[in-house]
Amino acid sequence: MISRFPGLFKFRGVASPRNHRSFHHHRHPPPPPAPATMSDLRPPEHQVAGHRASASKLGPVVDGSGLFYKPLQAGDRGEHELAFYEAFSAHAAVPPRIRDAFFPRFHGTRLLPTEARPGEPHPHLVLDDLLAGLEAPSVADIKIGAITWPPSSPEPYVAKCLAKDRGTTSVLLGFRVSGVRVVGPGGAVWRTERPEVKALDTAGVRRMLRRYVSSDSGEVVDCALAAAVYGGEGGVLSQLRELKAWFEEQTLFHFYSASILLGYDANAVSATGVGGGVRVKLVDFAHVAEGDGVIDHNFLGGLCSLIKFISEIVSETPDTPPLGP
Amino acid sequence: MISRFPGLFKFRGVASPRNHRSFHHHRHPPPPPAPATMSDLRPPEHQVAGHRASASKLGPVVDGSGLFYKPLQAGDRGEHELAFYEAFSAHAAVPPRIRDAFFPRFHGTRLLPTEARPGEPHPHLVLDDLLAGLEAPSVADIKIGAITWPPSSPEPYVAKCLAKDRGTTSVLLGFRVSGVRVVGPGGAVWRTERPEVKALDTAGVRRMLRRYVSSDSGEVVDCALAAAVYGGEGGVLSQLRELKAWFEEQTLFHFYSASILLGYDANAVSATGVGGGVRVKLVDFAHVAEGDGVIDHNFLGGLCSLIKFISEIVSETPDTPPLGP
Repeated sequence: MISRFPGLFKFRGVASPRNHRSFHHHRHPPPPPAPATMSDLRPPEHQVAGHRASASKLGPVVDGSGLFYKPLQAGDRGEHELAFYEAFSAHAAVPPRIRDAFFPRFHGTRLLPTEARPGEPHPHLVLDDLLAGLEAPSVADIKIGAITWPPSSPEPYVAKCLAKDRGTTSVLLGFRVSGVRVVGPGGAVWRTERPEVKALDTAGVRRMLRRYVSSDSGEVVDCALAAAVYGGEGGVLSQLRELKAWFEEQTLFHFYSASILLGYDANAVSATGVGGGVRVKLVDFAHVAEGDGVIDHNFLGGLCSLIKFISEIVSETPDTPPLGP
Repeated sequence: MISRFPGLFKFRGVASPRNHRSFHHHRHPPPPPAPATMSDLRPPEHQVAGHRASASKLGPVVDGSGLFYKPLQAGDRGEHELAFYEAFSAHAAVPPRIRDAFFPRFHGTRLLPTEARPGEPHPHLVLDDLLAGLEAPSVADIKIGAITWPPSSPEPYVAKCLAKDRGTTSVLLGFRVSGVRVVGPGGAVWRTERPEVKALDTAGVRRMLRRYVSSDSGEVVDCALAAAVYGGEGGVLSQLRELKAWFEEQTLFHFYSASILLGYDANAVSATGVGGGVRVKLVDFAHVAEGDGVIDHNFLGGLCSLIKFISEIVSETPDTPPLGP
């Protein structure tokens, strides 16, 4: 299997996984304890985009102890994502604050049984469960960048991605919403369906970003949580701006087709009007390319566009915290 | 002729040029005085990109009194660029400082004879000559954006642009250098040739941006003028950052396939090590689209990438002013 980005494997001190066909290499932090029993593994209930683990499909699982297991994707994507995590985890030029605040921590790989392929253990990336500790996680998955294909991609792949990017808001807005899950005050969950989310236009994206910070689980879009989740110190906007400052400087990686995952605890925010463990994380690195001394203008542009959308929602909503339930 | 962006003609108070087939409408600032004689018109000697006016081709001309006449392009491009200038000139939401600092002033249109089509006057946009007043203009034309086609473009046009964008540095860097002209101390002119400039890779772009601020007209790249031209108050970097701040906010226009034109007076900079009338201007608006409340993430991303390239050149060169000749 030939990686489209062989150079990605050349980062300091990290051998290519192609030289380690067993995924049980021990070059990483000590491997995490195995899940208590395999039966602890289950699809994350908060997943809003991507394949869901089932009898017919591989998908991520969590073990309830704070770890997230992502099956290595087919083709060279899985190897590529693994190579990224290895390089990124070890890269001396990545500020620790950026790594800790905005990326899932990488704990190596592990062979796990899967429901889809019984008796055939599959290699998984072991990562932090980004939503661990949130009682009632409201989640949004936003794919960043007008261009979702690494420039060195072969023509048919470019054409396929471009058709999808033009059919969604990616080209026009520099990002697209891939999925949203909102927990209402009574615990009722509202979530996007795949066809609906694919067809979103600019107005739909704006509505979805408002919907994400609305207190009602029905169709009422009141943006009652906008100030607490998007605004303020530690809010989404402040975190996105910190990320933006790094992207204006960093020339290590180009994050094609990666997503920003937003998360907050709907219970905590509704009760207190502040805090609520607001999280901003980057995920999905199967198409990361080396930066080669050039900034990731594509991710940065989309990030700036997302910041503008969110800042408009914050500025048009009052910043009085919502009352408790 | 159907514009691909009919909405562009709907800006406040500006009628569509399609309703004014004569280009002698008088809705603008008073028309400038006609050139003293038509024989005053000549191709600008400092032009570094685009078609050059000749017996076989339409191209821009200047009259030596500070005006630049750009022939309306064929198809709907010409109408489209005119519509942009009309809308932009009149738009209340464009900060006057941005309009004055970064755009050529628009003086309406004028029918002019051309060498290419004698006896058949052609409509021209009348604009400020952005290089007027520079004794020895060193010029760079840099096309901004990884995507050079408005998203609503038809498929064959997208495919054509994409092939070109992938064949140049546009996709990878978010910009490409379209042409450079440098005047050396003795007045010797160094300029790029079309095939050479089309084939530039990342290293070539970096070399070209260093070449642009080098004092020697030969192949020596000393970056002697980097501090004076790129750095300091009023330098290119400071102007680009001001432009960036506007692009982080403005949602009026999306500048597909537009260029940033850099200019400075090589004589003044070489003699004094400062000043030299450093200019940063946007040009080429045949593919501008309405912003519709969304920022131009594509232009902004490319602009940030260019800023990073130039800031690296400034920081790696000493800021002592060069000695006079």
